Amino acid sequence: MIETVAFAQDLIRCPSVTPKDEGVFDLLQTTLEGMGFTCHRLPFQEDGTERVENLYARFGTQAPNFCFAGHLDVVPVGDEKGWTFAPFGAEIHNGRLYGRGAADMKGAVAAFVEAAQNFIQEQGDNFKGSISFLITGDEEGPAINGTKKVLEWMEEQGEVMDHCLVGEPTNPQCMGEMMKVGRRGSINSVLTVHGTQGHVAYPHRADNPLPRLVKMLEALIADPLDNGNEFFDPSSLSLTTIDCGNEVENVIPGEVTAKFNIRYNNIHTGASLEKWIRETLDKVDTNYSLKTRISGESFMSDQDILTDLIEKATQKVTGVQPERSTSGGTSDARFITHSCTVAEFGLVGQTMHKVDENVLVEDLQSLTKIYQTILTDYFNEAI
Amino acid sequence: MIETVAFAQDLIRCPSVTPKDEGVFDLLQTTLEGMGFTCHRLPFQEDGTERVENLYARFGTQAPNFCFAGHLDVVPVGDEKGWTFAPFGAEIHNGRLYGRGAADMKGAVAAFVEAAQNFIQEQGDNFKGSISFLITGDEEGPAINGTKKVLEWMEEQGEVMDHCLVGEPTNPQCMGEMMKVGRRGSINSVLTVHGTQGHVAYPHRADNPLPRLVKMLEALIADPLDNGNEFFDPSSLSLTTIDCGNEVENVIPGEVTAKFNIRYNNIHTGASLEKWIRETLDKVDTNYSLKTRISGESFMSDQDILTDLIEKATQKVTGVQPERSTSGGTSDARFITHSCTVAEFGLVGQTMHKVDENVLVEDLQSLTKIYQTILTDYFNEAI
Repeated sequence: MIETVAFAQDLIRCPSVTPKDEGVFDLLQTTLEGMGFTCHRLPFQEDGTERVENLYARFGTQAPNFCFAGHLDVVPVGDEKGWTFAPFGAEIHNGRLYGRGAADMKGAVAAFVEAAQNFIQEQGDNFKGSISFLITGDEEGPAINGTKKVLEWMEEQGEVMDHCLVGEPTNPQCMGEMMKVGRRGSINSVLTVHGTQGHVAYPHRADNPLPRLVKMLEALIADPLDNGNEFFDPSSLSLTTIDCGNEVENVIPGEVTAKFNIRYNNIHTGASLEKWIRETLDKVDTNYSLKTRISGESFMSDQDILTDLIEKATQKVTGVQPERSTSGGTSDARFITHSCTVAEFGLVGQTMHKVDENVLVEDLQSLTKIYQTILTDYFNEAI
Repeated sequence: MIETVAFAQDLIRCPSVTPKDEGVFDLLQTTLEGMGFTCHRLPFQEDGTERVENLYARFGTQAPNFCFAGHLDVVPVGDEKGWTFAPFGAEIHNGRLYGRGAADMKGAVAAFVEAAQNFIQEQGDNFKGSISFLITGDEEGPAINGTKKVLEWMEEQGEVMDHCLVGEPTNPQCMGEMMKVGRRGSINSVLTVHGTQGHVAYPHRADNPLPRLVKMLEALIADPLDNGNEFFDPSSLSLTTIDCGNEVENVIPGEVTAKFNIRYNNIHTGASLEKWIRETLDKVDTNYSLKTRISGESFMSDQDILTDLIEKATQKVTGVQPERSTSGGTSDARFITHSCTVAEFGLVGQTMHKVDENVLVEDLQSLTKIYQTILTDYFNEAI
């Protein structure tokens, strides 16, 4: 019998800093196979990247397929001396489980394992439908050999998910206060402004790209991209670097590069933003090169059975009504949204990526109950 | 007997690329001593810099002291394969003397040596006054151990110059078309804008220095500094680099540095410009650091006997009336202007710092006559 807290401790004790696995996938696979899941280990490696472990596991063969998505890799420990308890010790003190990955997100994986086990036992032979796990070891890394590739594999295999719950830590301070029903998109741009080198004593013989860059960037940041809407904060453009590298103080440089990132809500798409960037720049100057890369489109999964079930279960277990948020960084939900409806709900993220990462043992138990309630309600309503 | 062209060849054959001397100072010293000059070799070296040769030589002890200032160091050869004739061969082809330093400015040094020799012989025992040479080996280099330090030494010794003619190449295309009666000043600024690092997903938690820098630079370049005047072109501000060095595309950086140079006319001083820079920046934002360095104040020597004599002599020898210009880069005249009236007149600079640097042999002879005429007229009028 799996119990969330003990299993979370076992998972944390594998120091699976991306891209390392350290036995954590074997542990989960053995556990799920013991519960009757069919497991597919999916290690991927692209040229020039590290090999990363992934696991797709399914219990049952019928639709609907409710999928839990998450990751077993963790970010580095950072300054180990800053930790009060060993980062991979998984010790419990004053009702808190300490360790790297406790909040992000081995605790939530463990909670869904116990929830699935309890649900499957409760249903017995009556269960129709499927429960699956999509677990990657490349969420905290480049995310090249992780969820994206598993989804491609699933499509090739004809594996269909009907709804997907991502177990990332979504609660800022207290259990139950927030779910994520969408995420902002992210587009990175590299702008290179071309000119002609020259001597500062003869500026008319040179074509200085720097004042032109200043005016181009000024145009990009002059007005807000939008004012946000009911579900999303305003989109934001952040200049992240400007680099020229001219070390000679009496020389006008020939080229300069600036980079910026836009986090955008569902008012925009990556394509509409690239068009806006080019139009805005072209009004100032056209002697530039621009490269853009969309690392994730914005998406919104509100007003779906999944988000209603999360809300209902959370209220039932914690008494708190979760806010439907779209704030924060990107997650693997950006990939999953192309396959099915996706929402995110997990633990309290306050200490994630920090020293002394921890979760309340009580929150692990609440999350287990919430996940189990979601499964019960989902299959009651969906079948 | 010294003859300009032959002596210029001897000087060019010493490959005295800054800070190297390669015997060129010994050659000049021996020659001047042969003409009756009292010579002071003044090698200087500051910590962290190369030792550089300098020479101050004076003929006569009485006032007025007419000084010729120049340098015997040359810029590097660059791509030696690009040269048609050996860069230190000092070969004459089709009426042109080829070699590094022919135009900038060993040719002019040689011309003044012959001019002084001819003038001294012509005057005989009647000569009252002094002729001097202030020659550095650090004009093309950092200019730390050169003219500036010789002037300090002269002040300590009570050595007074009454007028100084700098023999830099001043004519753009043809002999006689331009003298320099002033130079623009130059001030270098390093602007560092401070902020607080953060994640692009949470820009409100960071304080991005880049958009603030853009607005600060925009304010600096928004309007021209002035429209120039009768003697000077408009002052110009050139941004020379912006560097942030942030390689992480989802991180907002904590700091960025921009550098800019202002070449300014006599409407401004270094101090007035620094004040203007700070006031302009402060209107946008105050969370910055600014370092400025004035590498030379602007100056104007027009409407003086010296510039009139240059004009008169040039017209007499070449038939051309020289323009009184203040254009171009800085020269050692920026240091000398603090000691006495200074003006510049020399060869045609078209090929200076380039491959196949050369001067017309005819121009060397004209320049010798011009310099000799200036000396004759100066002492006739001044005494």
